[in-house]
Parts: sequence; structure tokens; C-alpha cells
Amino acid sequence: MSGPGDGATTSRDRELMQRAIAAGADARWVASPNPWVGAILVTADGELISGATRAPGQAHAEVVAIQRAGDRAAGATMYVTLEPCAHHGRTPPCIDAIIAAGLARVVVGVLDPDPRTNGAGVEALRRAGIEVNVGVVADKVEAQLAPYLHQRRTGRPFVVLKLASSLDGYTAAPDGSSKWITGPASRSDGHRLRAESDAIIVGAGTVRSDDPNLTVRDWQPPTGSHPEEYNPTRVVLGEAPEGALVHPCLELSGDPDEVLAELANRGMIQVLIEGGAAVAGAFHRAGLVDRYMLYLAPALFGGDDARSLFSGPGIWSIGDLWRGELVSVDRLGNDVRIELAPPPDQAGDDLATNAAIAEGA
Amino acid sequence: MSGPGDGATTSRDRELMQRAIAAGADARWVASPNPWVGAILVTADGELISGATRAPGQAHAEVVAIQRAGDRAAGATMYVTLEPCAHHGRTPPCIDAIIAAGLARVVVGVLDPDPRTNGAGVEALRRAGIEVNVGVVADKVEAQLAPYLHQRRTGRPFVVLKLASSLDGYTAAPDGSSKWITGPASRSDGHRLRAESDAIIVGAGTVRSDDPNLTVRDWQPPTGSHPEEYNPTRVVLGEAPEGALVHPCLELSGDPDEVLAELANRGMIQVLIEGGAAVAGAFHRAGLVDRYMLYLAPALFGGDDARSLFSGPGIWSIGDLWRGELVSVDRLGNDVRIELAPPPDQAGDDLATNAAIAEGA
Repeated sequence: MSGPGDGATTSRDRELMQRAIAAGADARWVASPNPWVGAILVTADGELISGATRAPGQAHAEVVAIQRAGDRAAGATMYVTLEPCAHHGRTPPCIDAIIAAGLARVVVGVLDPDPRTNGAGVEALRRAGIEVNVGVVADKVEAQLAPYLHQRRTGRPFVVLKLASSLDGYTAAPDGSSKWITGPASRSDGHRLRAESDAIIVGAGTVRSDDPNLTVRDWQPPTGSHPEEYNPTRVVLGEAPEGALVHPCLELSGDPDEVLAELANRGMIQVLIEGGAAVAGAFHRAGLVDRYMLYLAPALFGGDDARSLFSGPGIWSIGDLWRGELVSVDRLGNDVRIELAPPPDQAGDDLATNAAIAEGA
Repeated sequence: MSGPGDGATTSRDRELMQRAIAAGADARWVASPNPWVGAILVTADGELISGATRAPGQAHAEVVAIQRAGDRAAGATMYVTLEPCAHHGRTPPCIDAIIAAGLARVVVGVLDPDPRTNGAGVEALRRAGIEVNVGVVADKVEAQLAPYLHQRRTGRPFVVLKLASSLDGYTAAPDGSSKWITGPASRSDGHRLRAESDAIIVGAGTVRSDDPNLTVRDWQPPTGSHPEEYNPTRVVLGEAPEGALVHPCLELSGDPDEVLAELANRGMIQVLIEGGAAVAGAFHRAGLVDRYMLYLAPALFGGDDARSLFSGPGIWSIGDLWRGELVSVDRLGNDVRIELAPPPDQAGDDLATNAAIAEGA
């Protein structure tokens, strides 16, 4: 999408946006709960200077690149995955830094649905005489920033539901024993999911039966820091017994909608649901799961008396079958990991509003 | 494995055995219930002449290649996936044709566990002064001829269990409705399984509830012939009601072992179990399934009240969890197909005996 007077985008623009996406790839591990943005500044001489958003309170991707460029920023073009912010948060607005540095052109992946920016960043840059293009390689940026964009568009965190079972869909034997069904590669990937998430939700029943500590252990961050620096806030639905390993934790009650609203209020971008079957069923049936991560072991319980992934009543008739969309299928050690997104009509992101703002910018 | 006086095998031998395997690839659709063997004859001038086993009563792969070669067979080397037969069946022994044609050397993929040959073919060739090597690219030949080899080694047909479910392991809604969970690509692959099989087994309950006709329809044979030419014998465990679409069918009773023994007596190499959950559970728990084919739709029933893949009591405690081995994982349209083999200690093939014969040959 281009505004009045802006030129068309080129394949070179798309190539440089891909580089900006790559620059932001590991920013998730430092920037969260801010968006993990990447930027590439191309100087008038054709030099490429990258930036990625730093820890909360420190510079955003655009400012990192501009500071690195110094005088060479004048007349440059910037490729940035997310619209530069127009508001004072923990740092001054990025648009001020871009205008002050004298950039000639800014190419944006997607608009920032945060109501304090949401097109206002692009508008301010254009008013300052800077050429702006929006929507370059937008699908890949949408995928990279999905949890952040979803949270800002819906007011709810991006909900990831982790499920691990045998191929016949069971999570525990009739006697309650369940350790272990899936293998070490699946469990490590589950710890990566924890590290990505701002909160991890379990029911009080799971705390009483399994006494999990829900920390990040069997996974190594690409930043080289310690896994425990990525421990999410532990959220128990109901009351965690005194002495449970999950303490200190946040105890919440209410229906899934209320729980998610409370976590969004606390600035949480992604939450991970780890169990048990009642909590999984409640969030799934409320249509509030944004990503299903299923870890399937090549194992069979072989009957109808083991414990199911979801508890409670499911659909009554086949016409009501919930059908998701396969995102990825991978072998993980001896297991199979299947990633599923909800059908488009359930995704709930207010994309229409976002598109309208982009058009009007 | 080489006998006394035989030379070592070379990479050229392995390459030519791969060609023999390729020559036998489509023979399954014409040769069954005979083994679908492929052969490559290399003349003294280095010319390659291929053969594949024809319909029952017609020439085996070795004889096809020798007849094609005519005079050029003298002094040639033959690569053949399965040991040439030493017995009079519907056709004369292949070893007689090989000796009469004056071949100099025969390279064999695997020994034929049929008790009428089982090393005797190799022995007879060596006695006639022909150099013989056994066990070249044996793993791939084992995979290609798995159903035949299994049937001859164990006296039981190779049992394929077809399962189709949602990702939470359900096959039908609480009201009994189940059409359709998986998509057209999965259903067509299921028809391929029927075409490969000599018999298809269902329980009388499935006949009463679904009234299936169990014919081959939604699949096109590579031979260009009509799908219905591949209709397997329909086997009902129990009594099929008068007027059911499954007639004419074979009605059997007894435990899974007895049913399989009866089908092996009738010369059946591969049988396919299609349902329902009680039959699947009985064969699985008896350890009599040789290949699990799971078709998983990206769908969820979302509760614990739908119908499971297996009915009856499964394992009681996690220590007894049945663990298979992943053979393949594929996307089939919107579904995921997972192919599972039993653990080696359950496979039941009498490999030790076979190996002993090979060594002694």
C-alpha cells in the first residue's frame, strides 16, 4: 500500500525487508513484551546497517540502526518490520528520531495496531516529507509478530495450547500415571514454548496432582543466557495449595475470557496453556486458542479407558466438528509435532480495521 | 553373504539390485498373492534385460528375463530380489530355467522363506556351478516384499490396521455420526490399501451400523486397469445380516489368531482391518498388527465423550505403554498420515531361522 506521491515498491525492497525480518529474529528473546522488531538502514552510499529492538526501556530497532549510522542516516532508506511508534512509552517516539536523522524513505512491513500508533506513525512521517511504503512482505512479518499483533488487535494475549499424547489421543493411563509419553526432543520444545511466553496457565487440579514447577529448564536460549531468565509468570486457575512448587504464582478465577483480559491488562503478549484437560477443554470450546501445539508419541494406550486431551462434553454431532488449519508437521526425535491454527473465522484478529487504517494513511 | 568360492559383491552389484527392485515395483498389482519379484539380467556384452513376475500361473521374474534374453542368457549375471524358487508350483522351478540357460552368476536380495525353497534354490544353483551371492541391498528388498516375507516366516498374513480420526483420537461423535472426518486424499489412500490387500476385515457391528460395501473405488491402479479388479475378499467377523452390501463375503469367527490362520491357509498375504473399534482393539492387543496406518484430520471433537479408535480396556499403567516405530509421516491433502511399525520384539518374523539358513547355504 502506498500513499499519495509514494513510488511503487520493488523486488529490492522485498529483499531488504526479508533482511529486516532476519535482523529481528532473535529480538524476541530480549524485547518481549515489546514487539521484536528488526530494521535495515540503507545509506545513500548503499551501505546496510541493521538494528533490532533491545530490552524494555532501551532503544527500539529503528533507533539502534540510526545511532549506528550516525551522520550516514541523512538521506537513507529504512526497512522496518513494524510501523515506527508515534507515542512516548518507556522511550521517546521512533518517528522523532527518524525525522531528526533526515531519512528520505521508510518502508514498513505492517502497521502497528497499538491504538497509540496505528497509522499515526506513518502519517507523521509523511507530513514531515518522508516517502513511506507500507505492506512489504507483510505475510512474513505477520507470522513473525503474530502474538504481538494479535494482542494489540484483540485485547487478548495470543494463546498457545500445548498438548502431548499418544497417537490414540490419551495423556495418562487409567491409574493416573503419565510420565513419560513423549520424548526428550518434544519436552525441550515445550520448554522453548514456555520461554517464548509471558505467562503459563495451569488448573489448580494439575497443581494438586502433578505439583509442577513450570520453569524453563531443558532448552538453551540462542542468546547464550540462562534458561531461567525466561521463566514466565505462573498462573493458576483456582487456588494453589500452600507448599506447592508453583509458588510464587498468580491465582486467578473466572471464565477464560476474564482470565485473558486480566493478563492482557498486565501487558502479556503470549500465554501458554499446559493443562489439565478441563482447562484445555474450556479454552478450546470458548474459541480462545490461537495456536495448538500437539506432540504425538508413536505410542498407543489401545483402549477407551485412558485420559483424554480434553475433558467435558465435546461436540455432539459431526456437523459441528471443529476444523483447524495445519501450520506445520515435523518429526521431533521419535515424536511428531503438529501445529494447528484456528479456522480464519475464529482467529478474531480485527484485520478489517487494520486494513482500513492502512488504506486511509 | 557369500558362499565358499563366491567373490565379494561390489557397488555395481548394489546398483543393479536397485534396478531389480525398481523392475519389481509395479509387479505387486499383477503378481499377488505370488511375491512381486523383479530381476535384471546382465548379458556378457553388458546389456540389461529386465523381468517382473506376471499374474499367478504365468512366468516369474527370472523366467521373463531369460526368455527375453534368449541366447544372450548364456554366461550372464542375474540380479533378482528374491531367491529363485526350487519347487514346482503353478509354474516349473525357476532354478531349472536358470541352469538350462547357462547363467554364470546369480545375485539374490533375500532368501525365500517359503519352506519349499528357503535356501534350497541357492544350494541347487551352487551345485550346478553357478556363483551365487545373497543379501545385496537386503533392507530395501525386505521393505518391498515385507507382506510376503512376513506371511511365509510366521504363517500369518501381514496385518495392516487402518485408523482414521481427529487429532484428539476420535472416530465418531456421541450421536454416532462420523462422515467425513478425513479428506478425499486420505480416503483415496485407504482405497489403495484395500487394493494392495487380499482380504479386508470388519466386525459384524460395523456391517450393521455402516453397511459398507468395502470395494475399491476412489483410487486408480498404475496398471491402468479398473479399480474393482483389485477388490479384496470381504471378511466379516460374525454374521453379516441378509441384504447387507458386504455380500458375498466370508463369515469367520474365533479369536484373531484363528482368523489369521484361516486366511493364511487360503494363501492370503496381506489383510486390511478397517473396523470397528472392537476389532481394532482385539487385533492390536493380541500383538497381531504389522503396520498401523493412521489418517489424522486437523480437527478436534474437544471433549471426552466421542468414540475412540479402540474400544475395550487398554493398558492400566504407563509402564505398559505400547511404543511403535515411526515408518513415515506425510501430509495428505489437509490430513497427516502416520505409518507405524510394531517394536522389533513384537514383529514376530522368524529372522533368526532365515539368517541361519543363509549362513549355511
